Amino acid sequence: MYDLMVIGGGPAGLAASVYAARKQLKTLLISVDIGGQINTTLGIENYLGYQFIEGPELIGKFQTQVNQFPIDQKIGDKVSRLEKIEGGFEAISEAGDKYQARAVVLTTGKKPRKLNVPGETEFAGRGVTYCAICDGPIFSGQRVAVVGGGNSAVEAVLDMVKIAEHVDLVSLTPLTCDAVLAEQLGNAENVKDQSSDTKNIHSQLAGAKNLNIYTEYQTTNIEGQDFVNGLVIKDLKNGEKKRLDVTGVFIEIGLLPNSDPVKGLIKLNKRGEVPITPACETEISGLYAAGDVTDVPEKQIVVAAGEGAKAALQAHRYLQRLVK
Amino acid sequence: MYDLMVIGGGPAGLAASVYAARKQLKTLLISVDIGGQINTTLGIENYLGYQFIEGPELIGKFQTQVNQFPIDQKIGDKVSRLEKIEGGFEAISEAGDKYQARAVVLTTGKKPRKLNVPGETEFAGRGVTYCAICDGPIFSGQRVAVVGGGNSAVEAVLDMVKIAEHVDLVSLTPLTCDAVLAEQLGNAENVKDQSSDTKNIHSQLAGAKNLNIYTEYQTTNIEGQDFVNGLVIKDLKNGEKKRLDVTGVFIEIGLLPNSDPVKGLIKLNKRGEVPITPACETEISGLYAAGDVTDVPEKQIVVAAGEGAKAALQAHRYLQRLVK
Repeated sequence: MYDLMVIGGGPAGLAASVYAARKQLKTLLISVDIGGQINTTLGIENYLGYQFIEGPELIGKFQTQVNQFPIDQKIGDKVSRLEKIEGGFEAISEAGDKYQARAVVLTTGKKPRKLNVPGETEFAGRGVTYCAICDGPIFSGQRVAVVGGGNSAVEAVLDMVKIAEHVDLVSLTPLTCDAVLAEQLGNAENVKDQSSDTKNIHSQLAGAKNLNIYTEYQTTNIEGQDFVNGLVIKDLKNGEKKRLDVTGVFIEIGLLPNSDPVKGLIKLNKRGEVPITPACETEISGLYAAGDVTDVPEKQIVVAAGEGAKAALQAHRYLQRLVK
Repeated sequence: MYDLMVIGGGPAGLAASVYAARKQLKTLLISVDIGGQINTTLGIENYLGYQFIEGPELIGKFQTQVNQFPIDQKIGDKVSRLEKIEGGFEAISEAGDKYQARAVVLTTGKKPRKLNVPGETEFAGRGVTYCAICDGPIFSGQRVAVVGGGNSAVEAVLDMVKIAEHVDLVSLTPLTCDAVLAEQLGNAENVKDQSSDTKNIHSQLAGAKNLNIYTEYQTTNIEGQDFVNGLVIKDLKNGEKKRLDVTGVFIEIGLLPNSDPVKGLIKLNKRGEVPITPACETEISGLYAAGDVTDVPEKQIVVAAGEGAKAALQAHRYLQRLVK
């Protein structure tokens, strides 16, 4: 039986592993991969300590830091279910293996909801991105499209109109974002009407001449060579297709927390996230959670790393108090 | 009037500044110094992304990242009071200057309580340290002293007996730590009796032969050349002095949050910390707080940086919703 099992190998899980190992906890790290969502991040300009670093390079640095410790690593396996057992927890993996630990830090992250269109997987990290906050500034001066109609899509647009040369917002439905965000986009009421007129699609953002809004348009495919160079969209009214010559596609149609392993164990919130206290505690003693799988706001590498460190230190305190 | 005022230049404040600037908020950073407690940290092995980095080097990297943005910086001045004004906040500095912003992120950190003995200031960062979690592993195989008798001191001892060649615990009073920690030190009841017998001071920790406990001993001075090489302590019973040939001195006599500027503005907790939600909100709309000055557990650079990022992004959302 391990002292601590860290489930998930993104920044939260890697931070938790380093902190656990430094506390000399007998630690198991089990994860589908190392790096998690960083693997689909182009360049990183907002991880404190690096003015600019590529995703894979940062993952490498995290990994080196983890590998200096005697942490058991099961990479490539996935925990399908976590259960409470006498004196701790048992994880059952997809490969059918079972792992036991006295305490657990769950850091399984989120996965972006995918469009499932041709080109999406091919150009992930090469023009296709799922995080405007992270990758936005890299597209400074370029023409980009934001796909989605909810808060995160409109927030991405509001960010990108200041940074990009031009922004196309493409939504399958009328905008579903908060009114306050729609207002900032311009005239909320007119958005639907205007964009149903394909001849008269123009900026809804007061002062922003570099925004086109396409609502009730379906994204059909993403095109490119080495990198993205276009997005094909289809007007749902008349079936007409249109190619937007963009070099960046921000897919902002929501995120799904990878909270399946604890679905039967704890009560998740409406979004399927694991509710935690500021100390990363869940409702079950000995089970901590950190990073994007939790209800902590802001999906950022440095936030996840900080939360992971906190969770491991809290788990260590929990284990210390168990020891007689 | 600024959009955002960040008060404090440690990792939380620097992270907040970077995130605020990336959101193109008109930002003021006001702080006594850049780096905060990192300035008294020897080497850092637990900041994710750097296997080992010296404190000043990490500060330099953070600072470079901040300096690439048009952030107004008032370094060397200190906010003595923060007040709520119409449409935002006003900070009054010790220099007598006034600064106004629509939102504030407070990241003034904590300061370690000092022993106030000769050698302490001289050898800060050169053998004298205020964070065992941070600096402990650097003293691997060396002889160190921990000064203090509360939870953080005893936790430091429990960590260090596994890492150091030998540990001396020096407390002015009988131990005041939690019973569970005292138990882990060995036989809690005997600690006081045994250490009053200077001839028979030996390990109280079952199995640990490398620990001496000196309770009711006063630390009189810290000695060294370039680095610490000794600690002089005085038995309060008989006034006898003793020199411990240590190369590290961990001062763990508590931390004081730098929450004075908001004392009149919000309700602090018993420890003088600013209570926050997981989203870094305080009880006042538009006033966010992050890092060691808050009630968030775990005093770590990566935790503070993550909290700072979160606070700035939350402040940005707050400001967006204010805009018409």
